[in-house]
Amino acid sequence: MDIFDKYATIIGRHDKVLEAGTDPFAVRVDEMLSATEAMIGGRRTILLGTNNYLGLTFDPTAIDASVEAARRDGTGTTGSRIANGNYAQHQELELELAAFLKRRSCMVFTTGYQANLAMIAGVAGPRDVIFMDSDSHASIYDGCTLSGAKVIRFRHNDPDDLDRRLARSPEGECKLIIVEGLYSILGDTAPLKAFAEVKKKHGAWLMVDEAHSLGVYGGEGRGVAEAQDCEADVDFVVGTFSKSLAAIGGFGAANHPRFDCLRFCSRPYMFTASPSPASIASARASLRRMANDPNLRAAIWNNAERLHAGLRQLGYTVAAAPGPVAAIRLPDEATAVAAWNRLLQLGVYVNLAVPPGTPNGACLLRCSLSAAHAPAQIDEVLGRFERLSQSLRELATA
Amino acid sequence: MDIFDKYATIIGRHDKVLEAGTDPFAVRVDEMLSATEAMIGGRRTILLGTNNYLGLTFDPTAIDASVEAARRDGTGTTGSRIANGNYAQHQELELELAAFLKRRSCMVFTTGYQANLAMIAGVAGPRDVIFMDSDSHASIYDGCTLSGAKVIRFRHNDPDDLDRRLARSPEGECKLIIVEGLYSILGDTAPLKAFAEVKKKHGAWLMVDEAHSLGVYGGEGRGVAEAQDCEADVDFVVGTFSKSLAAIGGFGAANHPRFDCLRFCSRPYMFTASPSPASIASARASLRRMANDPNLRAAIWNNAERLHAGLRQLGYTVAAAPGPVAAIRLPDEATAVAAWNRLLQLGVYVNLAVPPGTPNGACLLRCSLSAAHAPAQIDEVLGRFERLSQSLRELATA
Repeated sequence: MDIFDKYATIIGRHDKVLEAGTDPFAVRVDEMLSATEAMIGGRRTILLGTNNYLGLTFDPTAIDASVEAARRDGTGTTGSRIANGNYAQHQELELELAAFLKRRSCMVFTTGYQANLAMIAGVAGPRDVIFMDSDSHASIYDGCTLSGAKVIRFRHNDPDDLDRRLARSPEGECKLIIVEGLYSILGDTAPLKAFAEVKKKHGAWLMVDEAHSLGVYGGEGRGVAEAQDCEADVDFVVGTFSKSLAAIGGFGAANHPRFDCLRFCSRPYMFTASPSPASIASARASLRRMANDPNLRAAIWNNAERLHAGLRQLGYTVAAAPGPVAAIRLPDEATAVAAWNRLLQLGVYVNLAVPPGTPNGACLLRCSLSAAHAPAQIDEVLGRFERLSQSLRELATA
Repeated sequence: MDIFDKYATIIGRHDKVLEAGTDPFAVRVDEMLSATEAMIGGRRTILLGTNNYLGLTFDPTAIDASVEAARRDGTGTTGSRIANGNYAQHQELELELAAFLKRRSCMVFTTGYQANLAMIAGVAGPRDVIFMDSDSHASIYDGCTLSGAKVIRFRHNDPDDLDRRLARSPEGECKLIIVEGLYSILGDTAPLKAFAEVKKKHGAWLMVDEAHSLGVYGGEGRGVAEAQDCEADVDFVVGTFSKSLAAIGGFGAANHPRFDCLRFCSRPYMFTASPSPASIASARASLRRMANDPNLRAAIWNNAERLHAGLRQLGYTVAAAPGPVAAIRLPDEATAVAAWNRLLQLGVYVNLAVPPGTPNGACLLRCSLSAAHAPAQIDEVLGRFERLSQSLRELATA
């Protein structure tokens, strides 16, 4: 038996997607032109499927900071934080993030994926019980697996279901609830305030992944918990540098006085090389910009309202209220794949989201906004979506 | 019950280590002075505990490449390889690595830790059986946990024990053997040729992590399998960018024609932001330098011989044959911690390695070499180790 036979079904499905045109999961960006445009397949393409929410990938201050750091500290640290890879800058960023988040301590991780692994498998152990929203990101699922905890999934965004499951929960030393602020596929936000009430009722702990909401939600950009005024009930915040902060890495933050024990107890923190000087420097610069420039948040929200309204006017079904993600529902996978290819031909890159990676088997075109999109670009995109409508009508009657 | 109570014992042990002086697991590098020197605690310190084996962290070509990439492509990709984060450069590096490794395909991952997670949990699944060397790195342990496979550990570097365990192995669709080329704590290499024979006898698959051996072992620097002339029997190679290549990231390579299915089957590859342009660019530059400059390998081997011989002459017990890692055995944890602190005072940074992170409860000072160490630095270090001997004698008679 061949060791890849286990993937025969997935490979078969993937082959079928390929027959419809370009491989949606291997689009090659030949050249970045700006935060919102790239050359893809020889065509100038508007990027409407990144996580560059604040548009800071080409922020000159952040680029200069990363350049200076590479020249001063080198291209990499070649060591973990518990060995030789604990540079002054890593600690500075942790202090700055803690101050921004108004938390006692913050830890920085090398990727956002590893942030969830380190936080979940660090905080929870084999004797604990985790209650996880069923729409959680893969990194949350993987963190739960690594933790060895008993894992119970509750219905997406359903505090009543969580309440019931906690009430009949199995024995465990501690109960940890894990939810996200903004869900990145459908673009819907969590009812965090209601979850916080359930948490308090059952004496559980609450971890919120604000990966997609940091910098976008809340009066000061701290995320959905800030927007819903329930940060005091969130015990652990997780986030990433590869979205609003336009770098690579992640963080965890808490007020718990023993939180920093994870520095010598959490394996995905201990046994990985620390972030490169360039990444840390650009994350620091972007954090300062994010904290001090509310225009960025205003810009992405204006773009979000404009795109959502325009898509609805064109007759598209958008899965959630206006926000940084606009997921367009399509009737089936074949239509979604055809629409995705047509949009790429029209010079718009969005994300194709199809089962098994989507909630309830939804077939979606995931569009995401950036503060760097000009309103005229949004209008241009809407014009192309109008042409897509025409193509879809032709497809339906063919 | 508090959620961190589970770590009470580890916290207690850590507190005890703190009583002896500086925290060995939170040394702050205030300023990097070169690939081999840093300011630590106000003191100019020789770095003898990094993984900067080829000394390329300050390679001017690599730094310039990373600077150029940041200016051209931005500070981060803000997306995964399966979405918007698949830049031309990521693919170029994969092709270059495949050519260097003489493998059909290569995949790049965002960290070396995630390379092991993605390769192991990608290649093996719940119906397979993994046979893992008991001294394996934490990322291999974590990859095995994530895979859901049945995991059987065999005695470190013992092909006979592996043979016996394979002979009485439980039912499983595929059997995957996982070993490392060079073990980073003790500095010993694996008998890969013997493992390859066992693998063939049982029709198993073989994965070798060459994280610490790439660029150092083998006539062309491909690692221990090249040095032992058994690369054809290695089905999957794993490696990292954060050691000899002086960047951050990792890779997997194979000749299997379906290997690239992991691009849409392996979660730690799919659900993480792709490496930053700067990291990829510096890894590419360092790979070229490594492939074309055999003097780097000669330099680290000269330094290794010089340090090993000098340490032995001073009466230290080094755990393995001369190589990039020289692990000095000390009788107990208290002595190891005291010695580590004394060396830091003398201006030498090494890694403290104590249980439970070490094989057979060993207490070690892990020294590692770099091609960038000048022979005079090695002599200087040996002089300081001589002073340490004196301190240890005083400690023993106190």
